[in-house]
Amino acid sequence: MKKAALLLSGGLDSATTLAIAKAQGFEIYALSFAYGQRHKRELTAAQHIAAHYGVREHRVLTFDLAAFGGSALTENGIAVPKDRDMDKAGGIPITYVPARNTIFLSFALAWAEVLKAYDIFIGVNALDYSGYPDCRPEFIRAFEEMANLATAYGTEGGGRITIHTPLIQLSKAEIIRKGMELGVDYGMTMSCYDPDEEGRACGHCDSCQLRMKGFRENGIQDPASREAAQDPVPRLRLPQDL
Amino acid sequence: MKKAALLLSGGLDSATTLAIAKAQGFEIYALSFAYGQRHKRELTAAQHIAAHYGVREHRVLTFDLAAFGGSALTENGIAVPKDRDMDKAGGIPITYVPARNTIFLSFALAWAEVLKAYDIFIGVNALDYSGYPDCRPEFIRAFEEMANLATAYGTEGGGRITIHTPLIQLSKAEIIRKGMELGVDYGMTMSCYDPDEEGRACGHCDSCQLRMKGFRENGIQDPASREAAQDPVPRLRLPQDL
Repeated sequence: MKKAALLLSGGLDSATTLAIAKAQGFEIYALSFAYGQRHKRELTAAQHIAAHYGVREHRVLTFDLAAFGGSALTENGIAVPKDRDMDKAGGIPITYVPARNTIFLSFALAWAEVLKAYDIFIGVNALDYSGYPDCRPEFIRAFEEMANLATAYGTEGGGRITIHTPLIQLSKAEIIRKGMELGVDYGMTMSCYDPDEEGRACGHCDSCQLRMKGFRENGIQDPASREAAQDPVPRLRLPQDL
Repeated sequence: MKKAALLLSGGLDSATTLAIAKAQGFEIYALSFAYGQRHKRELTAAQHIAAHYGVREHRVLTFDLAAFGGSALTENGIAVPKDRDMDKAGGIPITYVPARNTIFLSFALAWAEVLKAYDIFIGVNALDYSGYPDCRPEFIRAFEEMANLATAYGTEGGGRITIHTPLIQLSKAEIIRKGMELGVDYGMTMSCYDPDEEGRACGHCDSCQLRMKGFRENGIQDPASREAAQDPVPRLRLPQDL
Protein backbone atom coordinates (compact mmCIF):
# COMPACT_ATOMS: atom_id res chain seq x y z
CA MET A 1 0.00 0.00 0.00
CA LYS A 2 1.21 3.44 -0.87
CA LYS A 3 1.71 5.72 2.10
CA ALA A 4 0.43 9.27 2.21
CA ALA A 5 0.82 12.04 4.75
CA LEU A 6 -2.47 13.91 5.13
CA LEU A 7 -3.29 17.17 6.89
CA LEU A 8 -6.35 16.61 9.06
CA SER A 9 -7.85 19.68 10.70
CA GLY A 10 -11.09 18.03 11.73
CA GLY A 11 -13.15 20.16 9.35
CA LEU A 12 -15.41 19.22 6.48
CA ASP A 13 -12.75 19.64 3.81
CA SER A 14 -10.03 17.56 5.40
CA ALA A 15 -12.49 14.77 6.29
CA THR A 16 -13.57 14.64 2.64
CA THR A 17 -9.94 14.64 1.52
CA LEU A 18 -9.25 11.72 3.85
CA ALA A 19 -12.17 9.77 2.36
CA ILE A 20 -10.87 10.46 -1.15
CA ALA A 21 -7.31 9.40 -0.28
CA LYS A 22 -8.62 6.18 1.33
CA ALA A 23 -10.75 5.49 -1.75
CA GLN A 24 -7.61 5.87 -3.86
CA GLY A 25 -5.98 3.13 -1.80
CA PHE A 26 -3.52 5.13 0.27
CA GLU A 27 -2.36 4.15 3.73
CA ILE A 28 -2.89 7.34 5.70
CA TYR A 29 -0.55 9.06 8.13
CA ALA A 30 -2.70 11.90 9.43
CA LEU A 31 -1.21 15.03 10.92
CA SER A 32 -2.98 17.64 13.04
CA PHE A 33 -1.66 20.68 14.85
CA ALA A 34 -2.29 22.27 18.20
CA TYR A 35 -0.94 25.64 17.15
CA GLY A 36 -2.69 27.90 19.60
CA GLN A 37 -5.93 28.11 17.60
CA ARG A 38 -8.99 29.37 19.44
CA HIS A 39 -11.03 26.57 17.83
CA LYS A 40 -8.88 23.79 19.24
CA ARG A 41 -12.10 21.82 19.51
CA GLU A 42 -11.39 20.85 15.92
CA LEU A 43 -8.70 18.52 17.26
CA THR A 44 -11.37 16.46 19.01
CA ALA A 45 -13.09 16.12 15.67
CA ALA A 46 -9.79 15.20 14.00
CA GLN A 47 -9.27 12.42 16.51
CA HIS A 48 -12.76 10.97 15.92
CA ILE A 49 -12.33 11.12 12.16
CA ALA A 50 -8.85 9.54 12.26
CA ALA A 51 -10.15 6.70 14.43
CA HIS A 52 -13.27 6.27 12.28
CA TYR A 53 -11.22 5.93 9.12
CA GLY A 54 -8.61 3.67 10.65
CA VAL A 55 -5.65 5.77 9.62
CA ARG A 56 -2.32 4.07 10.12
CA GLU A 57 -1.09 6.80 12.46
CA HIS A 58 -2.45 10.10 13.66
CA ARG A 59 -0.06 12.60 15.18
CA VAL A 60 -0.88 15.92 16.77
CA LEU A 61 2.09 18.28 16.74
CA THR A 62 2.18 21.17 19.17
CA PHE A 63 3.71 24.60 18.69
CA ASP A 64 2.68 28.13 19.48
CA LEU A 65 1.72 30.27 16.50
CA ALA A 66 -0.19 32.46 18.95
CA ALA A 67 3.24 33.78 20.01
CA PHE A 68 3.42 35.55 16.66
CA GLY A 69 -0.25 36.58 16.70
CA GLY A 70 -1.59 38.64 13.84
CA SER A 71 -4.74 36.56 13.31
CA ALA A 72 -8.21 36.36 14.81
CA LEU A 73 -7.71 32.59 15.02
CA THR A 74 -4.71 32.81 17.33
CA GLU A 75 -5.05 36.15 19.09
CA ASN A 76 -7.82 36.47 21.65
CA GLY A 77 -7.78 40.25 21.34
CA ILE A 78 -8.91 40.05 17.71
CA ALA A 79 -12.57 39.13 17.17
CA VAL A 80 -13.61 36.58 14.54
CA PRO A 81 -15.67 38.53 11.95
CA LYS A 82 -19.31 37.49 11.82
CA ASP A 83 -21.96 37.69 9.08
CA ARG A 84 -19.64 38.97 6.39
CA ASP A 85 -21.19 39.07 2.94
CA MET A 86 -19.15 36.22 1.45
CA ASP A 87 -20.07 37.15 -2.11
CA LYS A 88 -18.68 40.64 -1.70
CA ALA A 89 -15.86 39.98 0.76
CA GLY A 90 -12.53 40.78 -0.91
CA GLY A 91 -8.94 40.80 0.29
CA ILE A 92 -7.41 38.64 2.99
CA PRO A 93 -9.56 38.44 6.13
CA ILE A 94 -8.25 38.75 9.68
CA THR A 95 -8.84 35.02 10.25
CA TYR A 96 -5.91 34.34 7.93
CA VAL A 97 -3.05 32.83 9.95
CA PRO A 98 0.26 33.96 8.41
CA ALA A 99 2.08 31.12 6.64
CA ARG A 100 -0.07 28.48 8.32
CA ASN A 101 -0.43 26.13 5.38
CA THR A 102 3.26 26.56 4.57
CA ILE A 103 4.14 25.47 8.10
CA PHE A 104 1.63 22.60 8.06
CA LEU A 105 2.83 21.33 4.69
CA SER A 106 6.46 21.62 5.82
CA PHE A 107 5.80 19.30 8.73
CA ALA A 108 3.90 16.92 6.43
CA LEU A 109 6.91 17.01 4.13
CA ALA A 110 9.24 16.13 6.99
CA TRP A 111 7.09 13.20 8.03
CA ALA A 112 6.61 12.03 4.43
CA GLU A 113 10.36 12.04 3.88
CA VAL A 114 10.98 9.95 7.00
CA LEU A 115 8.18 7.55 5.97
CA LYS A 116 9.49 7.40 2.39
CA ALA A 117 6.04 8.43 1.20
CA TYR A 118 5.64 10.18 -2.12
CA ASP A 119 2.24 11.73 -1.54
CA ILE A 120 0.84 14.50 0.66
CA PHE A 121 -2.86 15.38 0.79
CA ILE A 122 -4.29 18.75 1.82
CA GLY A 123 -7.94 19.77 1.62
CA VAL A 124 -7.51 23.34 0.45
CA ASN A 125 -10.03 24.80 -1.94
CA ALA A 126 -10.00 28.00 -3.88
CA LEU A 127 -13.66 28.49 -4.79
CA ASP A 128 -15.88 28.68 -1.70
CA TYR A 129 -13.09 29.77 0.60
CA SER A 130 -12.08 32.61 2.85
CA GLY A 131 -9.60 34.24 0.49
CA TYR A 132 -6.44 32.89 2.12
CA PRO A 133 -3.44 33.15 -0.22
CA ASP A 134 -2.17 29.74 0.90
CA CYS A 135 -5.22 27.97 -0.53
CA ARG A 136 -4.54 28.95 -4.13
CA PRO A 137 -3.37 26.51 -6.82
CA GLU A 138 -0.30 28.63 -7.59
CA PHE A 139 0.83 28.35 -3.97
CA ILE A 140 0.43 24.57 -3.99
CA ARG A 141 2.39 24.23 -7.23
CA ALA A 142 5.19 26.43 -5.84
CA PHE A 143 5.27 24.44 -2.59
CA GLU A 144 5.56 21.17 -4.50
CA GLU A 145 8.39 22.57 -6.60
CA MET A 146 10.19 23.80 -3.49
CA ALA A 147 9.60 20.51 -1.63
CA ASN A 148 11.38 18.58 -4.35
CA LEU A 149 14.43 20.81 -3.96
CA ALA A 150 14.36 20.90 -0.16
CA THR A 151 14.69 17.19 0.43
CA ALA A 152 16.11 13.91 -0.79
CA TYR A 153 13.15 13.86 -3.17
CA GLY A 154 14.34 15.25 -6.44
CA THR A 155 17.90 14.02 -5.87
CA GLU A 156 19.20 11.00 -7.73
CA GLY A 157 16.97 8.05 -6.96
CA GLY A 158 14.87 10.14 -4.60
CA GLY A 159 11.66 10.15 -6.62
CA ARG A 160 9.22 13.03 -6.50
CA ILE A 161 6.80 14.19 -3.83
CA THR A 162 3.32 15.17 -5.01
CA ILE A 163 0.96 17.52 -3.17
CA HIS A 164 -2.61 16.33 -3.80
CA THR A 165 -5.43 18.86 -3.54
CA PRO A 166 -8.52 16.92 -4.66
CA LEU A 167 -10.90 19.70 -3.57
CA ILE A 168 -9.11 22.71 -4.96
CA GLN A 169 -11.50 23.41 -7.83
CA LEU A 170 -14.72 22.27 -6.16
CA SER A 171 -17.44 24.42 -4.65
CA LYS A 172 -18.43 23.67 -1.07
CA ALA A 173 -21.63 22.05 -2.35
CA GLU A 174 -19.60 19.81 -4.68
CA ILE A 175 -17.24 18.86 -1.87
CA ILE A 176 -20.18 17.81 0.30
CA ARG A 177 -21.73 15.86 -2.58
CA LYS A 178 -18.44 14.06 -3.19
CA GLY A 179 -18.12 13.29 0.52
CA MET A 180 -21.68 11.98 0.77
CA GLU A 181 -20.98 9.62 -2.14
CA LEU A 182 -18.00 8.31 -0.20
CA GLY A 183 -20.05 7.96 2.97
CA VAL A 184 -18.40 10.72 4.99
CA ASP A 185 -20.24 11.38 8.25
CA TYR A 186 -20.13 15.15 8.42
CA GLY A 187 -21.61 14.99 11.89
CA MET A 188 -18.08 14.15 13.04
CA THR A 189 -16.58 17.28 11.54
CA MET A 190 -16.13 20.73 12.99
CA SER A 191 -15.72 23.79 10.78
CA CYS A 192 -16.38 26.77 13.02
CA TYR A 193 -13.65 29.30 13.78
CA ASP A 194 -15.29 30.36 17.00
CA PRO A 195 -17.19 27.51 18.67
CA ASP A 196 -18.52 27.77 22.19
CA GLU A 197 -17.31 25.65 25.09
CA GLU A 198 -19.69 22.84 24.17
CA GLY A 199 -18.31 22.64 20.64
CA ARG A 200 -21.35 24.35 19.19
CA ALA A 201 -20.59 26.27 16.01
CA CYS A 202 -21.25 30.01 15.99
CA GLY A 203 -23.13 29.87 12.67
CA HIS A 204 -21.89 33.31 11.65
CA CYS A 205 -18.15 33.13 10.88
CA ASP A 206 -16.95 32.73 7.27
CA SER A 207 -16.39 29.02 7.77
CA CYS A 208 -19.87 28.40 9.18
CA GLN A 209 -21.43 30.48 6.41
CA LEU A 210 -19.63 28.54 3.68
CA ARG A 211 -20.55 25.24 5.30
CA MET A 212 -24.24 26.12 5.68
CA LYS A 213 -24.36 27.38 2.10
CA GLY A 214 -22.87 24.10 0.89
CA PHE A 215 -25.52 22.00 2.64
CA ARG A 216 -28.29 24.39 1.63
CA GLU A 217 -27.28 24.18 -2.03
CA ASN A 218 -27.47 20.41 -1.81
CA GLY A 219 -30.89 20.65 -0.18
CA ILE A 220 -29.77 18.51 2.73
CA GLN A 221 -29.43 19.12 6.40
CA ASP A 222 -26.00 19.26 8.00
CA PRO A 223 -25.83 16.06 10.07
CA ALA A 224 -23.89 17.99 12.71
CA SER A 225 -27.10 19.88 13.39
CA ARG A 226 -29.55 17.00 13.16
CA GLU A 227 -30.17 16.82 16.89
CA ALA A 228 -31.91 20.16 16.58
CA ALA A 229 -33.73 19.99 13.29
CA GLN A 230 -34.93 23.56 13.54
CA ASP A 231 -31.40 24.80 13.97
CA PRO A 232 -29.09 24.99 10.96
CA VAL A 233 -26.07 25.64 13.18
CA PRO A 234 -23.82 22.59 13.33
CA ARG A 235 -22.57 21.25 16.60
CA LEU A 236 -19.61 18.93 17.03
CA ARG A 237 -20.89 15.57 18.14
CA LEU A 238 -18.82 14.25 20.98
CA PRO A 239 -17.91 10.57 21.39
CA GLN A 240 -21.00 9.86 23.50
CA ASP A 241 -23.18 11.11 20.63
CA LEU A 242 -21.61 8.93 17.97
CA MET B 1 15.00 50.80 10.50
CA LYS B 2 14.11 47.88 8.28
CA LYS B 3 13.04 44.78 10.17
CA ALA B 4 14.44 41.35 9.35
CA ALA B 5 13.60 37.90 10.68
CA LEU B 6 16.79 35.90 11.14
CA LEU B 7 17.33 32.21 11.85
CA LEU B 8 19.81 31.89 14.70
CA SER B 9 21.04 28.41 15.51
CA GLY B 10 23.92 29.50 17.72
CA GLY B 11 26.51 28.20 15.29
CA LEU B 12 29.31 29.96 13.46
CA ASP B 13 27.31 30.55 10.28
CA SER B 14 24.22 32.10 11.84
CA ALA B 15 26.34 34.34 14.11
CA THR B 16 28.18 35.62 11.04
CA THR B 17 24.89 36.12 9.22
CA LEU B 18 23.59 38.13 12.17
CA ALA B 19 26.69 40.36 12.10
CA ILE B 20 26.21 40.92 8.37
CA ALA B 21 22.52 41.76 8.74
CA LYS B 22 23.31 44.20 11.56
CA ALA B 23 26.05 45.80 9.45
CA GLN B 24 23.45 46.26 6.69
CA GLY B 25 21.31 48.22 9.13
CA PHE B 26 18.52 45.75 9.83
CA GLU B 27 16.61 45.57 13.08
CA ILE B 28 16.80 41.89 13.94
CA TYR B 29 14.06 39.54 15.07
CA ALA B 30 16.00 36.36 15.80
CA LEU B 31 14.32 32.97 15.81
CA SER B 32 15.70 29.74 17.26
CA PHE B 33 14.13 26.32 17.62
CA ALA B 34 14.07 23.68 20.31
CA TYR B 35 13.09 20.90 17.94
CA GLY B 36 14.37 17.89 19.81
CA GLN B 37 17.96 18.26 18.63
CA ARG B 38 20.59 16.34 20.57
CA HIS B 39 22.82 19.42 20.48
CA LYS B 40 20.32 21.67 22.22
CA ARG B 41 23.32 23.31 23.84
CA GLU B 42 23.38 25.44 20.69
CA LEU B 43 20.37 27.30 22.10
CA THR B 44 22.50 28.57 24.98
CA ALA B 45 24.91 29.91 22.40
CA ALA B 46 22.03 31.45 20.46
CA GLN B 47 20.85 33.27 23.57
CA HIS B 48 24.33 34.69 24.27
CA ILE B 49 24.72 35.82 20.68
CA ALA B 50 21.27 37.41 20.53
CA ALA B 51 21.95 39.32 23.75
CA HIS B 52 25.45 40.32 22.60
CA TYR B 53 24.12 41.76 19.35
CA GLY B 54 21.15 43.47 20.96
CA VAL B 55 18.58 41.95 18.66
CA ARG B 56 15.15 43.52 18.97
CA GLU B 57 13.55 40.22 19.92
CA HIS B 58 14.74 36.65 20.25
CA ARG B 59 12.17 33.88 20.26
CA VAL B 60 12.76 30.19 20.80
CA LEU B 61 9.97 28.10 19.34
CA THR B 62 9.45 24.57 20.58
CA PHE B 63 8.20 21.54 18.68
CA ASP B 64 9.15 17.92 18.47
CA LEU B 65 10.83 16.86 15.23
CA ALA B 66 12.23 13.91 17.16
CA ALA B 67 8.71 12.45 16.95
CA PHE B 68 9.35 11.87 13.25
CA GLY B 69 12.95 10.75 13.74
CA GLY B 70 14.98 9.72 10.74
CA SER B 71 18.08 11.74 11.63
CA ALA B 72 21.12 11.30 13.83
CA LEU B 73 20.45 14.79 15.17
CA THR B 74 17.03 13.94 16.56
CA GLU B 75 17.09 10.20 17.13
CA ASN B 76 19.23 8.95 19.98
CA GLY B 77 19.42 5.48 18.43
CA ILE B 78 21.33 6.84 15.41
CA ALA B 79 24.97 7.75 16.04
CA VAL B 80 26.47 10.97 14.69
CA PRO B 81 29.11 9.93 12.13
CA LYS B 82 32.66 10.83 13.15
CA ASP B 83 35.84 11.45 11.16
CA ARG B 84 34.23 11.23 7.74
CA ASP B 85 36.49 12.24 4.90
CA MET B 86 34.71 15.47 4.02
CA ASP B 87 36.42 15.76 0.65
CA LYS B 88 35.11 12.39 -0.45
CA ALA B 89 31.82 12.29 1.41
CA GLY B 90 28.96 12.20 -1.12
CA GLY B 91 25.21 11.91 -0.80
CA ILE B 92 23.03 13.10 2.05
CA PRO B 93 24.44 12.18 5.47
CA ILE B 94 22.39 10.75 8.33
CA THR B 95 22.70 14.04 10.24
CA TYR B 96 20.33 15.57 7.68
CA VAL B 97 17.03 16.42 9.40
CA PRO B 98 14.20 16.00 6.88
CA ALA B 99 12.69 19.33 5.81
CA ARG B 100 14.30 21.18 8.70
CA ASN B 101 15.22 24.37 6.87
CA THR B 102 11.82 24.36 5.16
CA ILE B 103 10.14 24.25 8.57
CA PHE B 104 12.49 26.88 10.04
CA LEU B 105 12.00 29.25 7.11
CA SER B 106 8.23 28.71 7.25
CA PHE B 107 8.14 29.93 10.83
CA ALA B 108 10.41 32.86 9.93
CA LEU B 109 7.99 33.65 7.12
CA ALA B 110 5.05 33.62 9.54
CA TRP B 111 6.82 35.95 11.91
CA ALA B 112 8.02 38.24 9.12
CA GLU B 113 4.49 38.54 7.79
CA VAL B 114 3.12 39.51 11.21
CA LEU B 115 5.97 42.01 11.67
CA LYS B 116 5.48 43.37 8.14
CA ALA B 117 9.15 42.70 7.48
CA TYR B 118 10.33 42.11 3.94
CA ASP B 119 13.58 40.34 4.70
CA ILE B 120 14.56 36.94 6.11
CA PHE B 121 18.18 35.93 6.76
CA ILE B 122 19.48 32.36 6.89
CA GLY B 123 23.13 31.32 7.18
CA VAL B 124 23.10 28.37 4.80
CA ASN B 125 26.14 27.69 2.70
CA ALA B 126 26.65 25.33 -0.17
CA LEU B 127 30.44 25.03 -0.35
CA ASP B 128 31.92 23.74 2.92
CA TYR B 129 28.73 22.04 4.04
CA SER B 130 27.37 18.66 4.95
CA GLY B 131 25.54 17.99 1.69
CA TYR B 132 22.06 18.85 2.93
CA PRO B 133 19.65 19.49 0.05
CA ASP B 134 18.04 22.38 1.94
CA CYS B 135 21.26 24.41 1.89
CA ARG B 136 21.43 24.71 -1.89
CA PRO B 137 20.77 27.95 -3.81
CA GLU B 138 18.03 26.30 -5.90
CA PHE B 139 16.13 25.41 -2.73
CA ILE B 140 16.36 28.98 -1.41
CA ARG B 141 15.16 30.42 -4.70
CA ALA B 142 12.22 28.02 -4.77
CA PHE B 143 11.35 28.82 -1.16
CA GLU B 144 11.35 32.54 -1.86
CA GLU B 145 9.11 32.03 -4.88
CA MET B 146 6.72 29.89 -2.83
CA ALA B 147 6.76 32.36 0.09
CA ASN B 148 5.55 35.15 -2.16
CA LEU B 149 2.58 33.02 -3.21
CA ALA B 150 1.82 31.68 0.27
CA THR B 151 1.22 35.00 1.97
CA ALA B 152 -0.03 38.55 1.63
CA TYR B 153 3.38 39.28 0.10
CA GLY B 154 2.99 39.10 -3.63
CA THR B 155 -0.65 40.20 -3.49
CA GLU B 156 -1.65 43.71 -4.45
CA GLY B 157 0.25 46.15 -2.26
CA GLY B 158 1.88 43.30 -0.35
CA GLY B 159 5.43 43.86 -1.51
CA ARG B 160 7.92 41.00 -1.82
CA ILE B 161 9.71 38.94 0.79
CA THR B 162 13.41 38.27 0.14
CA ILE B 163 15.40 35.37 1.57
CA HIS B 164 18.96 36.56 2.17
CA THR B 165 21.75 34.00 2.19
CA PRO B 166 24.92 36.07 2.48
CA LEU B 167 27.13 33.01 3.08
CA ILE B 168 25.80 30.69 0.43
CA GLN B 169 28.77 30.89 -1.93
CA LEU B 170 31.52 31.31 0.69
CA SER B 171 33.93 28.68 1.95
CA LYS B 172 34.08 28.17 5.71
CA ALA B 173 37.42 30.01 5.78
CA GLU B 174 35.87 32.95 3.94
CA ILE B 175 32.90 33.01 6.31
CA ILE B 176 35.24 33.18 9.30
CA ARG B 177 37.31 35.91 7.64
CA LYS B 178 34.17 37.92 6.96
CA GLY B 179 33.01 37.43 10.55
CA MET B 180 36.39 38.46 11.99
CA GLU B 181 36.25 41.67 9.96
CA LEU B 182 32.86 42.36 11.53
CA GLY B 183 34.16 41.56 15.00
CA VAL B 184 32.21 38.35 15.56
CA ASP B 185 33.31 36.58 18.74
CA TYR B 186 33.33 32.97 17.63
CA GLY B 187 33.99 31.92 21.19
CA MET B 188 30.28 32.46 21.75
CA THR B 189 29.27 30.07 18.99
CA MET B 190 28.64 26.34 19.08
CA SER B 191 28.84 24.22 15.94
CA CYS B 192 29.13 20.63 17.15
CA TYR B 193 26.38 18.09 16.41
CA ASP B 194 27.32 15.97 19.38
CA PRO B 195 28.69 18.03 22.28
CA ASP B 196 29.22 16.58 25.72
CA GLU B 197 27.34 17.62 28.83
CA GLU B 198 29.74 20.50 29.44
CA GLY B 199 29.16 21.90 25.95
CA ARG B 200 32.52 20.68 24.73
CA ALA B 201 32.55 19.96 21.01
CA CYS B 202 33.35 16.42 19.87
CA GLY B 203 35.90 17.59 17.29
CA HIS B 204 35.02 14.74 14.95
CA CYS B 205 31.57 15.28 13.47
CA ASP B 206 31.16 16.92 10.04
CA SER B 207 30.37 20.26 11.60
CA CYS B 208 33.44 20.25 13.87
CA GLN B 209 35.63 19.15 10.97
CA LEU B 210 34.39 21.95 8.72
CA ARG B 211 34.82 24.50 11.49
CA MET B 212 38.34 23.40 12.37
CA LYS B 213 39.32 23.39 8.69
CA GLY B 214 38.00 26.95 8.35
CA PHE B 215 40.10 28.25 11.22
CA ARG B 216 43.12 26.22 10.11
CA GLU B 217 42.95 27.68 6.60
CA ASN B 218 42.90 31.16 8.11
CA GLY B 219 45.91 30.28 10.26
CA ILE B 220 44.09 31.36 13.40
CA GLN B 221 42.96 29.58 16.49
CA ASP B 222 39.28 29.03 17.18
CA PRO B 223 38.53 31.35 20.10
CA ALA B 224 36.13 28.75 21.44
CA SER B 225 39.21 26.62 22.15
CA ARG B 226 41.51 29.33 23.47
CA GLU B 227 41.29 28.23 27.08
CA ALA B 228 43.21 25.14 26.07
CA ALA B 229 45.69 26.37 23.52
CA GLN B 230 46.93 22.87 22.80
CA ASP B 231 43.46 21.68 22.02
CA PRO B 232 41.87 22.57 18.69
CA VAL B 233 38.49 21.30 19.86
CA PRO B 234 36.13 24.20 20.52
CA ARG B 235 34.12 24.43 23.69
CA LEU B 236 31.07 26.58 24.18
CA ARG B 237 31.92 29.34 26.61
CA LEU B 238 29.21 29.73 29.18
CA PRO B 239 28.08 33.10 30.57
CA GLN B 240 30.60 32.96 33.43
CA ASP B 241 33.42 32.62 30.86
CA LEU B 242 32.37 35.59 28.79
